[in-house]
Amino acid sequence: MQRGNLLTGLPSRPAEEQIERLVEGRNIRIERIVSTGQASPTGFWYDQPDDEFVVLLSGAARLRFEHDLLALDMKPGDWVEIPAHRRHRVEWTQVEPPTVWLAVHRSG
Amino acid sequence: MQRGNLLTGLPSRPAEEQIERLVEGRNIRIERIVSTGQASPTGFWYDQPDDEFVVLLSGAARLRFEHDLLALDMKPGDWVEIPAHRRHRVEWTQVEPPTVWLAVHRSG
Repeated sequence: MQRGNLLTGLPSRPAEEQIERLVEGRNIRIERIVSTGQASPTGFWYDQPDDEFVVLLSGAARLRFEHDLLALDMKPGDWVEIPAHRRHRVEWTQVEPPTVWLAVHRSG
Repeated sequence: MQRGNLLTGLPSRPAEEQIERLVEGRNIRIERIVSTGQASPTGFWYDQPDDEFVVLLSGAARLRFEHDLLALDMKPGDWVEIPAHRRHRVEWTQVEPPTVWLAVHRSG
């Protein structure tokens, strides 16, 4: 049986975002993402083919959705369901303590 | 776009476990579960048709799996992937602060 802890074994200030695949099924992918200050490049928008449920577990972050006036400031426990092809970007993530996300990507 | 916070709006000591459906898709169901001391009845085992990924976000709990000698004590951040029909029970959950789980059930 697979198991682990999302809040331990955090990389210490890696240069890049760390993505760890926890579970993968036919139509699903569950990942832990650790951000330490990384943000989307200027002008970049994620445009994903899958629906994504994402929850912030520690740290803090700011998301922005295209055509939305308001940014979405996220604190621990905050979740958002991002429909496929809803263009969004990560404007800012907290460095320390690191920003830990759990993401559930689904297709089909 | 659906969103919320998993750690706020907690029921205060309800008699029963509170299950809130956050997202539902064709092969998936994402729920927040709030336990405040509830446990599985003596001799009861969950025997679920779906795979379940569950992570404990706050509080504490003890799970037991059939034919396992050891119980699984869970603290915040701990996750476990429970394959379909892997019989298990909740032996104990912390009352205060409440025990909050995020569960991802998948079929297909």
